[in-house]
Amino acid sequence: MKTGKISTKMYKWAEDLFPICRSITGDGVRSTLNYLKNILPDMVLKEVPSGTKVFDWVVPDEWIIRQAYIEDASGNRVIDFQNNNLHLVGYSEPVDLWLDLDELDEFLHSLPEQPSAIPYVTSYYKRGWGFCLTHDQRSSLKKGVYHIYIDSEIKPGVLNYGELIVPGKTDEEVFLSTYVCHPSMANNELSGPVVTTALALWINSLENRKYTYRIIFIPETIGSIVYLNEHLEHLKKNVVAGFNVTCIGDDRCYSFLPSRNGNTLSDRVALHVLKHTDLNFKIYTWLDRGSDERQYCAPGVDLPVATIMRSKYNEYPEYHTSLDDLSLVTPRGLEGGYQALKKSIEIIEDNIYPKINVLCEPQLGKRGLYPLLSTKHSDKQVRTMMNLISYCDGSHSLLEICELIAEPFWELMIMLETLKKHGLVSYEKN
Amino acid sequence: MKTGKISTKMYKWAEDLFPICRSITGDGVRSTLNYLKNILPDMVLKEVPSGTKVFDWVVPDEWIIRQAYIEDASGNRVIDFQNNNLHLVGYSEPVDLWLDLDELDEFLHSLPEQPSAIPYVTSYYKRGWGFCLTHDQRSSLKKGVYHIYIDSEIKPGVLNYGELIVPGKTDEEVFLSTYVCHPSMANNELSGPVVTTALALWINSLENRKYTYRIIFIPETIGSIVYLNEHLEHLKKNVVAGFNVTCIGDDRCYSFLPSRNGNTLSDRVALHVLKHTDLNFKIYTWLDRGSDERQYCAPGVDLPVATIMRSKYNEYPEYHTSLDDLSLVTPRGLEGGYQALKKSIEIIEDNIYPKINVLCEPQLGKRGLYPLLSTKHSDKQVRTMMNLISYCDGSHSLLEICELIAEPFWELMIMLETLKKHGLVSYEKN
Amino acid sequence: MKTGKISTKMYKWAEDLFPICRSITGDGVRSTLNYLKNILPDMVLKEVPSGTKVFDWVVPDEWIIRQAYIEDASGNRVIDFQNNNLHLVGYSEPVDLWLDLDELDEFLHSLPEQPSAIPYVTSYYKRGWGFCLTHDQRSSLKKGVYHIYIDSEIKPGVLNYGELIVPGKTDEEVFLSTYVCHPSMANNELSGPVVTTALALWINSLENRKYTYRIIFIPETIGSIVYLNEHLEHLKKNVVAGFNVTCIGDDRCYSFLPSRNGNTLSDRVALHVLKHTDLNFKIYTWLDRGSDERQYCAPGVDLPVATIMRSKYNEYPEYHTSLDDLSLVTPRGLEGGYQALKKSIEIIEDNIYPKINVLCEPQLGKRGLYPLLSTKHSDKQVRTMMNLISYCDGSHSLLEICELIAEPFWELMIMLETLKKHGLVSYEKN
Repeated sequence: MKTGKISTKMYKWAEDLFPICRSITGDGVRSTLNYLKNILPDMVLKEVPSGTKVFDWVVPDEWIIRQAYIEDASGNRVIDFQNNNLHLVGYSEPVDLWLDLDELDEFLHSLPEQPSAIPYVTSYYKRGWGFCLTHDQRSSLKKGVYHIYIDSEIKPGVLNYGELIVPGKTDEEVFLSTYVCHPSMANNELSGPVVTTALALWINSLENRKYTYRIIFIPETIGSIVYLNEHLEHLKKNVVAGFNVTCIGDDRCYSFLPSRNGNTLSDRVALHVLKHTDLNFKIYTWLDRGSDERQYCAPGVDLPVATIMRSKYNEYPEYHTSLDDLSLVTPRGLEGGYQALKKSIEIIEDNIYPKINVLCEPQLGKRGLYPLLSTKHSDKQVRTMMNLISYCDGSHSLLEICELIAEPFWELMIMLETLKKHGLVSYEKN
Repeated sequence: MKTGKISTKMYKWAEDLFPICRSITGDGVRSTLNYLKNILPDMVLKEVPSGTKVFDWVVPDEWIIRQAYIEDASGNRVIDFQNNNLHLVGYSEPVDLWLDLDELDEFLHSLPEQPSAIPYVTSYYKRGWGFCLTHDQRSSLKKGVYHIYIDSEIKPGVLNYGELIVPGKTDEEVFLSTYVCHPSMANNELSGPVVTTALALWINSLENRKYTYRIIFIPETIGSIVYLNEHLEHLKKNVVAGFNVTCIGDDRCYSFLPSRNGNTLSDRVALHVLKHTDLNFKIYTWLDRGSDERQYCAPGVDLPVATIMRSKYNEYPEYHTSLDDLSLVTPRGLEGGYQALKKSIEIIEDNIYPKINVLCEPQLGKRGLYPLLSTKHSDKQVRTMMNLISYCDGSHSLLEICELIAEPFWELMIMLETLKKHGLVSYEKN
Repeated sequence: MKTGKISTKMYKWAEDLFPICRSITGDGVRSTLNYLKNILPDMVLKEVPSGTKVFDWVVPDEWIIRQAYIEDASGNRVIDFQNNNLHLVGYSEPVDLWLDLDELDEFLHSLPEQPSAIPYVTSYYKRGWGFCLTHDQRSSLKKGVYHIYIDSEIKPGVLNYGELIVPGKTDEEVFLSTYVCHPSMANNELSGPVVTTALALWINSLENRKYTYRIIFIPETIGSIVYLNEHLEHLKKNVVAGFNVTCIGDDRCYSFLPSRNGNTLSDRVALHVLKHTDLNFKIYTWLDRGSDERQYCAPGVDLPVATIMRSKYNEYPEYHTSLDDLSLVTPRGLEGGYQALKKSIEIIEDNIYPKINVLCEPQLGKRGLYPLLSTKHSDKQVRTMMNLISYCDGSHSLLEICELIAEPFWELMIMLETLKKHGLVSYEKN
């Protein structure tokens, strides 16, 4: 796969998936998973029946939505789910009634401070219904009676998710999780699934994978709880690092949210990559969490799951509104997020413990390693190579060495390969 | 006991005790201890004879003081111990002689920079005598001869102290020490004894005490040395936390002085309470010490004794002068100090290790825990509850969790009780 | 030895040694070592034949230089090695030829930004030749042909070094290394050999040496590699602390360069001494290294070798030019460097674990320890003594105590001796 093209591909997938009305269950999730399985044929689609007990939770009934609108007395559809699936509160019950504008008002949601945005509202675990609209639309509603029509069903069905296992040389696993339960929004959340899909393609193309990769596409919260309920012991035993992939497609800064532990391999790798990717990346704390790390890092679960994002959920103005669309998410934004996670995985794969083969400094001159590096930056590069060598003691991992000498992993890895070719350094890769 | 009234009680005790001329031995200490025993009937009064060897020290002779004055040639008493017991240097020898003002001068102590303050001076271990007076008084002394009269005795007797043991469920002890050797001064030091007395009443009223409380009222330095000499092995074996109670009655900032170790339970508890009591509290270091922690934390003694104060000795302008009086110490000042120590003890009693009973996040909604919290601060409170739950892993103490999520112990304790009632969290209290 | 005179002696040695043309091999090193052996008769002169394999390196052929100049067509010597041995690139091959100025140019080295300085250039491991001159000289060269004459030889010989072992009570060693391979420059590097010589005299004069001292005078890099090749196991087993002595003679700030480990005894001692010697001393990191610590701290070697300097190599304007002369290095500058290393060694010798002999604070008054200290600074001194005592628990070394109470080792050592004399404190010295 040409990574030069991957940004275009990811953006195309996002465009295709954007119109689908996803929720935590139902046809929207299934269409989305089927679309992704087309790209990742080895992905397995799974389902769990409504009513299944999963730890403290119960898998909810499925929500089927066919049509929803508000018509005025003259039959004009002033709000129509067809136009934008954010118009309907997620899991709205079926409704067919006439209400005066005054009575209707309590079922409407809008944002006075963002008058052109439709807010995103759901009511998964409390029966009810509602419509979301821009504050401008709401202000323009005339007094009078309106016909409210929601053709939906909430009934036992299944919760769907997709699982892709890409085997490696060892049973130790790297875990990627992303979610497919948000309707037409782009950064939160189509960026996660499309970046994860691109990563899965790349991982699949790796010839020497040390780790087995477990990649899941789930509905948020209830999906991760379902998955943990089924795989907890396996995950606790095998997962060495993992990332929750979300909010990773806009062009703004990068962000980091740690695991609960805060110092797992995932945390250290993510911090290293972001530090060398974006000098101004934001560091959040565990207290700022809000996605599936809440389950993956819960007491007794304790998986090493950290999060690399671009603009974090809750923290950007378009969050959870119709403004979070495909003008906010860009090919370049997705590519940046993809690269950050790709580099993170490369570090996890390649984090070797290099050891110098000679005592005292090696004589680089006689091996032509000075000329080899003779560019306009050669002094800096020779110096960096000497610094690298000075820590190749077999007890520092390459990632630790990178932190000690403040250089990015991917540059020192190339230098190490040169040194290995000259017989100066030894390490086991994979 | 109503804590609403405790400030009034403490201030009344301070008023009653203020006029007594205390020193490290003698009638003043005895009257003070008898007054306190009236409030705390279980307190045991103890005595140790002069001449007893205690580690590197010897219990001094008792000082009896009946009368002391300076008269001018016309028989006017220009300085009289009756007016203020600070006028006489502590442990002054008997004197009856006439001196010219020039000769008298070297026996006088005043503070040019605080001309209306009588300084507090003692000479416990070097025989001598002297008078303290305001610098204004000193300046007004006319040339001429003066009659110096001190009717005192220094002779073998006893050193007195009071000890109150309030038993708990375990033999592990919390240790409180305060001192009763200062004459008419208020913050340093009647605040310590009256706050300690109020704490003793409250501790006595606790129905479920985990710890045994050992509370002593001693003369400073020699008293703590005497007490350690008698109880060192017991204290080292049993004391889990302790506080030296001093300078805890004025209205100004709070202060913290650590144990020598610096990271005992007492230190951590005190820092937590003060951080959530007074954003601008002062943190001193072990090098700023100056009271009985010098003995309690000495090498080989090493008790976990920290100090919570309001204005620290040595650091406020009225310190060790007649200006440290009952206008400086207030009911509100005493109440604040009392509350800080009470909260500290409550944390020590209740510092449990909570453990969540479900894997993944619990579903708070179905238990009505969202509405339960539905005040105007409800979002913040739900968030805090989720943060609390996220650390209930059985390996963090509640105090550690409080530090991790920057919330006060007493608020999270209430939340934990709610969670326990709902069966979500388990812990052993006491 | 009177230390009052040591600065004069060191400066005199530097003056005597300055004119000698040193390189990593040859007569210049030998003359220098012989001069130093005259001062340190127990020093043993050693030699290693050219061609000896030492780890990744080979001992080079010896360089013999007799004469070198550039004459113009009229026979005027425009550049003459006799005038300044920096004029010739180190290890220049024999040459006798006529070149036009245009052709000659590529063999000339000068510094446009320092037009009056002759740069210092060597070519140890690549055959070639060249002349160094001031940029002013270079600019004044007229067009025309020049006669280049270098009467040198490069042929199998030996590498020389000096080794002085000063035995102590134990086999544990303190290691000092300095280098004798730089031609006429003063801070880098005659300051190292002369300060090391002075230290050796002082160490030899110590009556109760705990440690054995191993002091070597070597050519830089290849010399330390040769020495490690011969003594690695012994050094790894015995050396408890060590210093590379270099750039220690000018009057400017002090500098510290850590060992690779960064927290060895040498590092801690050096930081303590410099903190109490020069408030503005500079702290470099391992990444700023550039001398024999590169070998001594290499992976698998790992000796505890730190560096105390005045102006660090590479960091001062005169570095590696003819401006680094005996006007830059001064008697006062050498004395300061000498004292810093002397104090460091004294701390290593005397870093005892004092233990107070009484429980609780001792009564200093009855021992006259208050009056003893009664100077105008007495309060501060009594306070410092009490702080010192408070940490004499047998588990803190004196150096650790010094850091805890922010006082210099040499002052607390004196206080401890007073306390020991009074029977208050015990410790084993040596």
